Amino acid sequence: MEYKKVISPDVEGYVLSAAKSAFEVKREFSQATTAMKNNALRLMAAAIGDRKNEILDANRTDLANADTIEPALLERLELTEKRVSQMMNGILSVVELADPVGAISRLERRPSGIEVGRMRVPLGMIGVIYEARPAVTADVSALAIKSGNVALLKGGSEAQFSNQVIAHCVQAGLSASGLPASGIMSLDTTDRRAVGAMLTLNQYIDVIVPRGGKGLCQRVATEATMPSIQHLDGVCHVYLDDSAEIDKAIAIAINAKTQRYGTCNTMETLLATPAAASRIFPKLLEEFILREVELRGCSRTREFSEAVIEATEEDWYTEYLAPILSVKIVDNIDEAMAHIAKYGSGHSEAIVTESISLARKFLNEVDSSSVIVNASTRFADGFEYGLGAEMGISTSKFHARGPVGLEGLTSEKWVVIGNGQIRE
Amino acid sequence: MEYKKVISPDVEGYVLSAAKSAFEVKREFSQATTAMKNNALRLMAAAIGDRKNEILDANRTDLANADTIEPALLERLELTEKRVSQMMNGILSVVELADPVGAISRLERRPSGIEVGRMRVPLGMIGVIYEARPAVTADVSALAIKSGNVALLKGGSEAQFSNQVIAHCVQAGLSASGLPASGIMSLDTTDRRAVGAMLTLNQYIDVIVPRGGKGLCQRVATEATMPSIQHLDGVCHVYLDDSAEIDKAIAIAINAKTQRYGTCNTMETLLATPAAASRIFPKLLEEFILREVELRGCSRTREFSEAVIEATEEDWYTEYLAPILSVKIVDNIDEAMAHIAKYGSGHSEAIVTESISLARKFLNEVDSSSVIVNASTRFADGFEYGLGAEMGISTSKFHARGPVGLEGLTSEKWVVIGNGQIRE
Repeated sequence: MEYKKVISPDVEGYVLSAAKSAFEVKREFSQATTAMKNNALRLMAAAIGDRKNEILDANRTDLANADTIEPALLERLELTEKRVSQMMNGILSVVELADPVGAISRLERRPSGIEVGRMRVPLGMIGVIYEARPAVTADVSALAIKSGNVALLKGGSEAQFSNQVIAHCVQAGLSASGLPASGIMSLDTTDRRAVGAMLTLNQYIDVIVPRGGKGLCQRVATEATMPSIQHLDGVCHVYLDDSAEIDKAIAIAINAKTQRYGTCNTMETLLATPAAASRIFPKLLEEFILREVELRGCSRTREFSEAVIEATEEDWYTEYLAPILSVKIVDNIDEAMAHIAKYGSGHSEAIVTESISLARKFLNEVDSSSVIVNASTRFADGFEYGLGAEMGISTSKFHARGPVGLEGLTSEKWVVIGNGQIRE
Repeated sequence: MEYKKVISPDVEGYVLSAAKSAFEVKREFSQATTAMKNNALRLMAAAIGDRKNEILDANRTDLANADTIEPALLERLELTEKRVSQMMNGILSVVELADPVGAISRLERRPSGIEVGRMRVPLGMIGVIYEARPAVTADVSALAIKSGNVALLKGGSEAQFSNQVIAHCVQAGLSASGLPASGIMSLDTTDRRAVGAMLTLNQYIDVIVPRGGKGLCQRVATEATMPSIQHLDGVCHVYLDDSAEIDKAIAIAINAKTQRYGTCNTMETLLATPAAASRIFPKLLEEFILREVELRGCSRTREFSEAVIEATEEDWYTEYLAPILSVKIVDNIDEAMAHIAKYGSGHSEAIVTESISLARKFLNEVDSSSVIVNASTRFADGFEYGLGAEMGISTSKFHARGPVGLEGLTSEKWVVIGNGQIRE
C-alpha cells in the first residue's frame, strides 16, 4: 500500500471543516446507548485486528521517514505485533467500564416544590493533541466514544501514516455499528499550523487535552481559547517521617524511584527527618547505589555516603525521568511540606509514617493531585485507582485532578422537575 | 473622610504583589476550620454594620464621580441602607452553608490493597473581575473564605471608593478572627491594565470569574491564561408541547418572561407546537400584550394576533433583557430542540408537557446547564437550587455548569492509604 502525505494549502479551513463534521454528530454520540457504544468499540478493535499488517506496514514507513529523530522518540513511535494487541485489548477494556452518561444524582425536593438533581452528560467535543505514540489514536477514541463525546485528534507528524490507518479502523468500527464515522476526526496533516488552528476553535471544542512534552503543554496553556486538561511535570516526593518503618520505607522509596524511571509518578526527590535518615539511609542509599541511581543530596545527606554528590537549587525543581534522585534531610513534616509546596509540581507525594496524626496532616495539607500514605507514588495511575483507563493525569486543579478517566470527560447539568411551579 | 485615588505607575507590579500576598497565606485559608471561617464571616458582617455610614459616604462619592454614566449602571452602583443590610445578611447566610472542604468520598479498597478515595479541597486562589455592583466585594469574599480559597478581586472603577471601604471591612473581619487579612486582596486601582495583568497570573490564580458584560467575558475567554468560570448570555426557551396543560403553560410562560426582565434566566423565546398554540396562544398572547410585552413572532404565530410583529433571524439569537419576547411555532419536540441547539446559549430551557416520554427526551437531549420540566426558567438560580449562594451561573461545560456555589470553588484530590504497598 502507498501512503500519501496530505498537503492542504488551507490548513485552517481543513481543521475547521473537520471540527464541524464532528460537531454535527454530537447528539448521536451523546444519546447513543451503552450497547451501541460498546458495539462500536468491539468493531473498532476487530478492524484493528483485521488490518494489523497494514498498521505495521504504515508504521515501518513512519519509522523509515523518522531516521533523524532521537531513540526515545523512535521507541514511542514503533508498533509491534504485541503493541497492536495491547491497543485492541485497551479498547476492549473500555467496553468493560461503566457508562457514566445519564446518571441522575442528588435529586432533592426544594421548598418551592420543584425537584432538583444533576445529570451526568458528555462535555461535547474533546480535542486531543499528542506526539509520537500512534496507539493514543485508538486509546483516546475509545474513551471519547464511551463517554459520549465526539473528538478531534491531532497526532504527531512522525506517526502520520500509522495514525491514518488506525483512524480508518476507528471510523470503520463506528460505521459498522451505525454511529456516524465523522464523530471521531483525526487530522491527517503534518502542517504545524493545524495545532494553532485547533486552539482557536472554542466554538466547537469543549476541552483540549495536550499529551506531550512541556513545550506543547505550555503552548496550549497560553494559546488555547478553551479549557484544557493539563498534564505538566511530575516532580514527586516521598517523605520519610521519624516513625517510618524501615522495611516499608525502603520498599516504597526503591519502588517509587526504580520501578520505572520515565513515568510522571516516579519519585524525583526523597525527603527524610534526621532520625529517619539515621535509621534508614545507610541501607537505603546503598540500595540505590547498587541499582546505579545517581544520588544528589543536601550537605546532611552527603554525610551518609561519599557517593552522594552535591545537589544544586536547580535539582529540587527537576523531573529527571532518569536514574537520578535528589535527597534532602528536613527537620520535620512542616519543612517537608514547605519543600513540596515550593519545588513540587502538584502531581503525587507520599509520606511513610506510623503516626496517624502526621498521616492525617499530610493528607489534609499537601496540595497535590494524589496524596499517599505508606504506598509508592507509582500507584498514582488511572488503572490502579480503578478508572480502568485514563485520558491523562491532570496537574491543574480545575474540573479534574490526577488521573482523568471517563468521568473527567463529562460534567453535570441540572435537571428540574416541577408540576407547574412558578417563582414568587 | 477623604477618598484618595490610588495611582500606581507600575500597575503590573502592583497586581503581582497583591497576588503574591494572597498566595502566601493559601495554606492558612485552606486549613482553617469551619468555626474559624464562620467567625471571620460574622466579624466581616459586623464590620460592615459598624462602618455603614462610611460605606454610604464612599458610595455617594462614587455616584458623584459617575455623573456621566448610564442610569442602569448608576442603579447597580448605588448603595442604600437596605442594600448594606442585604450585604450583611448575604454574608451571614454563607455562615449557614455546609463547609465542603475536607470531605472524603468514594473510599474503596483496590486489588493492590491500597485504599483510594477523593478529598474535596479548595481550588486555591479565585480571581474575580466585576463591574459596578460594590456588594459583589462582600459576596465573593464570603464565598471564597467559606470554601477555603484566597481571592484577588478587581471591582469596577466606578465603585472604587465603595469597594475600598468594603474591602477594609472584609480584611478587618479576617484579622479580628485570626485569619490573615491578606487572603482577600482587593485591587485598589482604576488603571485598566490591572485586568490584563491579572489574566496572565496563572502561576497564582487558579480560576478567574468574570462577572460583567459580554465584552469582559469575551476578553477573559480569549486572554486568560488560567481556567475561567464563564457566564455568557442567557437566551432561555420555554417549549409548550401538544399535551401541555393550559393553566400550567400560561403560568410558567408569564412567570418566565415577566417576573423579572433583566435576569439571565428570563425566557427570551417561546416555542410551541401548532396544537399547543391553538389551545394556549389566544389567552397567553393576550396576557403578554396586557403586560406590555412586545411580541415578535414567526408567520404562524402572527396569525394569532395582529399585535405580533415579524421576528427576524437576529431575534432568535437575542437576549432582550427587556419586555420583548420572540415566539415560534415548531412542528414537534425535535424541531424545538434543534431550534434551542442552534439559537440558544446553553443556559436554561423548560418544557411544559404531560407526556413522561417527551419530558424524559427533553431532559436527556437538551444540552443546557439547566433543563426544566413543568416549571419556570426563573428557578435556575443558586438559591432556588439549594446552593445557598452563588458565585455566578456557568454556561461553560467544564468543571461546573449552571449556578456555581461553594462546591464549584473546590475540586477533589486523590487520597491513597496503604500499608507499605509497592507497585508490581
